[in-house]
Amino acid sequence: MSAENADGAVFYEQLENLEDEFEEVELELLRQQDKLTKDLYAKRAKVIAQIPSFWPLVFEQAPPDIDEYVQPTDSAVLLSSLVDLSVERFELPDGDPRSIAIKFEFSENEYFENKVLEKKFWWRRNKDGWAGLVSEPVKINWKPGKDLTSGLLDLVYQVWEDDKAGKGDDTEAKKKLREQMESTGLDGVSFFAWFGFRGLSISEEENQAALKEEQAKRQARKEGKPVDDDDEEDDEDEDEDEYEMEIFPTADDLAVCIAEDLWPGAIKYFLTAQEMDGQSDISFESDEEMDEAEAPQPSKKRKA
Amino acid sequence: MSAENADGAVFYEQLENLEDEFEEVELELLRQQDKLTKDLYAKRAKVIAQIPSFWPLVFEQAPPDIDEYVQPTDSAVLLSSLVDLSVERFELPDGDPRSIAIKFEFSENEYFENKVLEKKFWWRRNKDGWAGLVSEPVKINWKPGKDLTSGLLDLVYQVWEDDKAGKGDDTEAKKKLREQMESTGLDGVSFFAWFGFRGLSISEEENQAALKEEQAKRQARKEGKPVDDDDEEDDEDEDEDEYEMEIFPTADDLAVCIAEDLWPGAIKYFLTAQEMDGQSDISFESDEEMDEAEAPQPSKKRKA
Repeated sequence: MSAENADGAVFYEQLENLEDEFEEVELELLRQQDKLTKDLYAKRAKVIAQIPSFWPLVFEQAPPDIDEYVQPTDSAVLLSSLVDLSVERFELPDGDPRSIAIKFEFSENEYFENKVLEKKFWWRRNKDGWAGLVSEPVKINWKPGKDLTSGLLDLVYQVWEDDKAGKGDDTEAKKKLREQMESTGLDGVSFFAWFGFRGLSISEEENQAALKEEQAKRQARKEGKPVDDDDEEDDEDEDEDEYEMEIFPTADDLAVCIAEDLWPGAIKYFLTAQEMDGQSDISFESDEEMDEAEAPQPSKKRKA
Repeated sequence: MSAENADGAVFYEQLENLEDEFEEVELELLRQQDKLTKDLYAKRAKVIAQIPSFWPLVFEQAPPDIDEYVQPTDSAVLLSSLVDLSVERFELPDGDPRSIAIKFEFSENEYFENKVLEKKFWWRRNKDGWAGLVSEPVKINWKPGKDLTSGLLDLVYQVWEDDKAGKGDDTEAKKKLREQMESTGLDGVSFFAWFGFRGLSISEEENQAALKEEQAKRQARKEGKPVDDDDEEDDEDEDEDEYEMEIFPTADDLAVCIAEDLWPGAIKYFLTAQEMDGQSDISFESDEEMDEAEAPQPSKKRKA
């Protein structure tokens, strides 16, 4: 190792130490945020519950990072039947504040039987040094002929069941899923395919072991001891394996966007939707006067 | 006012109250963030100072919201001579944490004489209910024939001086600026035009009066008293007046993006740049071994 590389390595270690410390602060701020906003969100939920079409109107004004995934049919479903949305950092107070649960509540609709669809994302770390959100597929009970994902979500769910049962790589569901993904691709896939996301498969035991290893590594780096970072390079191949069967590969990013933009900004988006509908004179109607049939149409919004 | 409008108005007031409370929490979290990260940023600055081309490499990997404004010539200037960047929430601890100062430090270069270019953005409110970032033009002492803004920034600065001297709307500089903006447009304008941004003209007295009025309004709304919000509709025309002479209309958004993304994420972007340059084996050189001529070229990054 030449002289300049040795210097470079020292700077690199220092930068990594700093990143560790910044991450600690970020987690602390997320915890504080959760604490400081919990009551406010509860209060907001009570007000929102009295305003029909609140969440459909919020989705109508969703930022491009979310809107790009909402197909016209998805939009119709949300508009006619989304009655509540909530986001919870469910591993708090003791666990990781980056783990999030996103819960959709629906009224009776022509597409599926579920009244509640909740998707959980766990912040997990694996032994290769990868850290991020992982999830489990959520089953949607489609009404006959109404599956917005054309069977993809059901297949993903079956594959997951097969995997849990240790059925190996040659199951019927896996073959079908692979075939369908190859033949139709994922362009224009329904927003509801998001519920199928799995991400890397990391057990709670593996996560705990990886966390422990990472802590030891950080401590060593802090004390200026040599740290073996080589294994961090290995995970790329594994990622690709995992994502081959993913019907909504960016579901984790979308979840973060819902949790950090749509959810905290909901009132702002709702008020914008009101203005766009030419109702800036505060004329949105209360629950009693309005039924589903009268809900405003997603008229003025241009699709990205 | 009909029954449903009265209900709507009640919900509307409740939503506005909630937004006020969420804003308070947001400000508190910004204050906490500043407190918890201050020492870390100071530590980071010391490490960065030893790494040549740190900030140029960060800019090379800047997210699209920033990168779209960096023209190829700007990129060359940053690459050859940007030696430091810093962001400060300069009105803390007592003032508004949303006010930000962004300071660029440069080495000797062929484009301008300045060693430091600092742009401050103040979070201000006016009597029409508008709140946001305002600024003052920063003068750049261009070397002969090297003005990257083709005279726009100088004109903006002259107009500002004229305005301060109360010279009215028919000055030479205003005419010239208007003509040049109309004839050439602002497509592909230099990143350095960003230093010319003014935003709405709000004096400290007007800001204080508007803050007081807003506080009274919020208090009244909280107590369920009637609030006159009509004047909030008036500001749109004024905005347009202001922006007519703005050579970088989205400068406030860009400032926020630098402060909330590029600045906290600098180490991440730097490490990505290192990887992109095929130097993932930690071979970036220390200050002594590297001069400007050897600085890495902005090769692999595709322009948005």
